[in-house]
Amino acid sequence: MKLDLESDKTGYQERPVTRHKGASDARTTDRVIEEVPVALVFNGISHAVMMVTPRDLQPFAMGFALTEGLVAQASDIFDIEVHEHARSFEIDITIASQEFVQLKQQRRSMAGRSGCGVCGIESLELLDLQPERIDAASLHAEGALQPAIANAASQLGEHQALMRATGGVHAAAWCDAQGNVLRVCEDVGRHNALDKLIGHLALEGVDMRLGFVFMSSRASYELVRKAARMNIPMLATISAPSTLAIDIAAEAGIKLVSFCRHDSCVEYT
Amino acid sequence: MKLDLESDKTGYQERPVTRHKGASDARTTDRVIEEVPVALVFNGISHAVMMVTPRDLQPFAMGFALTEGLVAQASDIFDIEVHEHARSFEIDITIASQEFVQLKQQRRSMAGRSGCGVCGIESLELLDLQPERIDAASLHAEGALQPAIANAASQLGEHQALMRATGGVHAAAWCDAQGNVLRVCEDVGRHNALDKLIGHLALEGVDMRLGFVFMSSRASYELVRKAARMNIPMLATISAPSTLAIDIAAEAGIKLVSFCRHDSCVEYT
Repeated sequence: MKLDLESDKTGYQERPVTRHKGASDARTTDRVIEEVPVALVFNGISHAVMMVTPRDLQPFAMGFALTEGLVAQASDIFDIEVHEHARSFEIDITIASQEFVQLKQQRRSMAGRSGCGVCGIESLELLDLQPERIDAASLHAEGALQPAIANAASQLGEHQALMRATGGVHAAAWCDAQGNVLRVCEDVGRHNALDKLIGHLALEGVDMRLGFVFMSSRASYELVRKAARMNIPMLATISAPSTLAIDIAAEAGIKLVSFCRHDSCVEYT
Repeated sequence: MKLDLESDKTGYQERPVTRHKGASDARTTDRVIEEVPVALVFNGISHAVMMVTPRDLQPFAMGFALTEGLVAQASDIFDIEVHEHARSFEIDITIASQEFVQLKQQRRSMAGRSGCGVCGIESLELLDLQPERIDAASLHAEGALQPAIANAASQLGEHQALMRATGGVHAAAWCDAQGNVLRVCEDVGRHNALDKLIGHLALEGVDMRLGFVFMSSRASYELVRKAARMNIPMLATISAPSTLAIDIAAEAGIKLVSFCRHDSCVEYT
């Protein structure tokens, strides 16, 4: 599959602003994170519109298809083409016909905004609250968790280029068991950042059972659910978890660690 | 309409945790914000599932119906009943039959997770990127904006009870033109916090053209879109805006102010 990683896209735009500081005003410009509607079209059928920062769109589509269970493995995706329109993007994804039949049977019309995870559930019966247990061993012996978290927390900042530019964007980092940050993706939506990251890892054939995901955000349901589908053994976040994130992590066998700092963290499962 | 504001619900649960601090571990408990699937059922038909903190669910349903344009005014909603199930809630909303016909014609199967705003768009054609201009006058004369923001920023914290308890929840505040915080709603989803707030205001008959919304979060598309539907003249946020939030605010005639602090803010429209 031909990849074009849109290396020319910055993910932000310059906008005119007025800065108020005390009683003084100043006209200047500010770098603002881009949020753009991106339609995900599988074998010609529009499946979802997500609000996404338009970088890494091919890995995003790959990650989305995998973490939403639309395809079982990266090799089921034959092609990903990104088309830019005036105020939106369309990603055309060609998947194996067997997968496509299953997809059509799933009655899901997904959708999203920048904060939106896995969408398209219109009734409670369709909600997936019972993950399978992940197929991965525990990552850390006793005493080895906090040093890995400290390592990841100290390394993340230097990789957050869009955060430095705009001040408003989530980061998803892939770390080895020792907490070394190996790759970071950024997006206005935390679930998009995770999908971009997982897409990259899948395209590179990385074994996701051997590391962990470190997020700059809170831990909510959809992040844990997506990690579970990839057999990722641990999710660590800088901010707080929700009850449902804890419940789903416990059922899937994922270690959930939040409030991650240089010298402390809180383990919830 | 009979309101039961679930005054007994805290919105959080106690969970067992292990706190790692340097080389020491401690078993303790932590207060964790609740995230629960809530099905919104209009006249017997399931319309959307949102991930919500289960407080203020009646105002949430009212606000959601209004800000999503499902009903034109609060009086089109005849009844809102909240039913608690084992791991979810169902809200049964009875709306005027004329509105329900329009709703059925909208091909939207909304859905959500905790970060998700207005969902259910499966193709770009269905996306609503062109708001009408709001019917509201500018709120502040020159020089009056920054003092109002400073006022709101200094008052918000004392109203964030769930934030103090759990460390991970958004707040939406209703402020008068001088920035006095009159009401605050909190939720795992920023758009839910806004819907709860707007639901309360609508139930109380507040004229939303005469104040502004102050959010603890970033400013993304769906917040601006929801504010526009209610003719709210200004949205102020503590964190950064996205390009699309700025664009939609400009088109709707909403003033968008972000990075709001005690002594500074940035005006984007």
